[in-house]
Amino acid sequence: MASQPASSPSPQNPELRKDKINNKWVIFSPARSKRPSDFKSKSPVTDPNQNQSQECPFCIGHEHECAPEIFRVLDESDSHSKWRIRVIQNLYPALSRDIEPHNPGSLDMDCRVVAGYGFHDVVIETPTHPVHLSDLPGSGVGEVLMAYKKRVLQLASFDAIQYIQVFKNHGASAGASMSHSHSQIIALPIVPPSISTRLAAMKDHFEQTGKCILCEKPPQELLISESRYFISVVPFAASYAFEIWIIPRYHSPHFHDIDREKADDLGGLLKLMLKKMGLQLNNPPFNYMIHTSPLRIDDSQLSCSHWFLQIVPQLTVLAGFEVATGCHINPVFPQDAANIFRQVHVQ
Amino acid sequence: MASQPASSPSPQNPELRKDKINNKWVIFSPARSKRPSDFKSKSPVTDPNQNQSQECPFCIGHEHECAPEIFRVLDESDSHSKWRIRVIQNLYPALSRDIEPHNPGSLDMDCRVVAGYGFHDVVIETPTHPVHLSDLPGSGVGEVLMAYKKRVLQLASFDAIQYIQVFKNHGASAGASMSHSHSQIIALPIVPPSISTRLAAMKDHFEQTGKCILCEKPPQELLISESRYFISVVPFAASYAFEIWIIPRYHSPHFHDIDREKADDLGGLLKLMLKKMGLQLNNPPFNYMIHTSPLRIDDSQLSCSHWFLQIVPQLTVLAGFEVATGCHINPVFPQDAANIFRQVHVQ
Ligand SMILES: Nc1ncnc2c1ncn2[C@@H]1O[C@H](COP(=O)(O)OP(=O)(O)O[C@H]2O[C@H](CO)[C@@H](O)[C@H](O)[C@H]2O)[C@@H](O)[C@H]1O
Ligand SMILES: Nc1ncnc2c1ncn2[C@@H]1O[C@H](COP(=O)(O)OP(=O)(O)O[C@H]2O[C@H](CO)[C@@H](O)[C@H](O)[C@H]2O)[C@@H](O)[C@H]1O
Repeated sequence: MASQPASSPSPQNPELRKDKINNKWVIFSPARSKRPSDFKSKSPVTDPNQNQSQECPFCIGHEHECAPEIFRVLDESDSHSKWRIRVIQNLYPALSRDIEPHNPGSLDMDCRVVAGYGFHDVVIETPTHPVHLSDLPGSGVGEVLMAYKKRVLQLASFDAIQYIQVFKNHGASAGASMSHSHSQIIALPIVPPSISTRLAAMKDHFEQTGKCILCEKPPQELLISESRYFISVVPFAASYAFEIWIIPRYHSPHFHDIDREKADDLGGLLKLMLKKMGLQLNNPPFNYMIHTSPLRIDDSQLSCSHWFLQIVPQLTVLAGFEVATGCHINPVFPQDAANIFRQVHVQ
Repeated sequence: MASQPASSPSPQNPELRKDKINNKWVIFSPARSKRPSDFKSKSPVTDPNQNQSQECPFCIGHEHECAPEIFRVLDESDSHSKWRIRVIQNLYPALSRDIEPHNPGSLDMDCRVVAGYGFHDVVIETPTHPVHLSDLPGSGVGEVLMAYKKRVLQLASFDAIQYIQVFKNHGASAGASMSHSHSQIIALPIVPPSISTRLAAMKDHFEQTGKCILCEKPPQELLISESRYFISVVPFAASYAFEIWIIPRYHSPHFHDIDREKADDLGGLLKLMLKKMGLQLNNPPFNYMIHTSPLRIDDSQLSCSHWFLQIVPQLTVLAGFEVATGCHINPVFPQDAANIFRQVHVQ
């Protein structure tokens, strides 16, 4: 994050900010937050206890109701060797592991159709229905991150796989269809253009400044917290109100190069951010996404690309303007959101 | 739309398709539509009659509760000269018309902040609360389109305005905060990068083939309907299930060059598509967006850019995967959606 002159108190006039990493403009408009609505309750309440373990296929004891398991992480402190995390196939996968992949070499400019080859897995983060990711200890979250890493490494060994997306949906209005705490991993036979755009933007910045854009220290006013290996910030041009990025302080293009020590450290910071967000925003539905680099990048890209984790509380609905232009309207200035998060006290 | 070999019946395997106009990949995955959900009702029901005219500032008689009017369209058949359409300022505008615009010439690569100068208006499409756009006669819809045109032309006269987005939100889960039938117009001091991307893609296609991509006849299987001046199709790589594009059959870069005859013709086709969508999908929340060209494009872009109107029923929630990658997962193949729409009978 290139630094920016400190500016507080926040201006009241609307402002457009350029997200240089994603090549997007964001409109900051505090006035928008005051508008009324004549529709009742926009986001259905998420009841973490609904559909208890009697019915939930992700609960312990219901393993036979799930698509095949890929691996499990055992609870070593438990004499019955119960599982703590399961990585399984998605029963309704977006892509199919059983069809012939498109020959990656033939992916030319004119190609308009590619076979839907790929992998779609679910990571069940806990055996127990009412437990959420942020209820785990930092090292428990670290263990989930290590399960992501392990599965990403397995998927990376398939030649036709180009990009791997790890993400989590929590709550119905963040898109979740299952309430049991879980995340997903999708391995794609293409590199999505938005990821190529990000990579190119990071490269441009590197060529102009000689520095990796995410290695640069963010301005103090955007910083929420730091741990040994990571920082958490509200990005300068956050698309979503109260969006958070967790960025490694060490240069690293690929999430899957993380080790156990760093994963535990990230686990602690991720837990802290989820707790702060939950306390400040009343347990909102949210998504998080790990933005990593394509599997096969050339050496010139290694020094300028840097992975990070984005957390997005889903507080509003994207509508016609955002769908049409890709510009988001954010009623909360990033420096204000960071300031609020800094002050949230987590027990 | 470049044509594509007919392929029916639909393949059951997932498939990735490239949206060449927006430079995006879309995953088509029929299996996804079968997945269960343990969250109850995802989209709050839209009751068109809620908040009747006693409270609604957009209803006739409540004009004083609104931000200032820009112009109105009168009902000439009415001796009291009641209004039929009002274009007003948005009371909670995303951008401000009262601040100094950024000097457009200084918008260089490095610019990260631009003053939030711009215009944000509301088009009230009918004086009566329970009437929706698709309840108007085709010529009534045409009149709304002519009101857009008139306001766009006014906004285009401001030097600092670069792009104008017309859009409509209908229903709470499509983002609407007001239930009275309306649309919005936002005039921006920048060209959103996604629009530059589209323009560049259209130019590439023109340079490769000598033809405007949207002047090309779409394959029969994607066609829903045609009118004198427009066609309606499901695009080859639709991001959303049952998405519809209405495309002028005549080459035209800017929506605002439409005339009354063509607006009435478009009004009829738009009404027909909204009716078909409402019947087939049980009155879903939806957005529509007019995708036009930036105000100031050079002559070389005039022959390759072509405006169109996109209608998106909001049937699912975008979640972590889509936010992260910009790739949508669509459970319905476009040829199947078009086939279904062709068969919906509108009285
Ligand atoms: N018995 C079983 N065994 C194995 N897997 C099972 C299973 N029962 C259900 N599943 C899978 O578990 C997953 C749960 O995922 P989420 O709740 O995070 O959201 P989902 O993928 O449904 O869709 C959200 O995320 C996607 C991707 O972002 C969006 O496309 C979509 O609109 C949004 O609702 C589903 O993908 C489902 O297929
Ligand atoms: N008395 C009055 N006079 C004049 N104007 C009045 C008014 N009372 C309300 N308004 C305005 O009327 C507009 C109604 O618009 P919509 O219902 O289409 O959605 P809204 O803009 O609220 O947000 C949706 O669309 C935007 C843009 O896509 C998204 O950012 C957002 O998340 C989504 O909910 C609002 O913008 C509001 O400010």
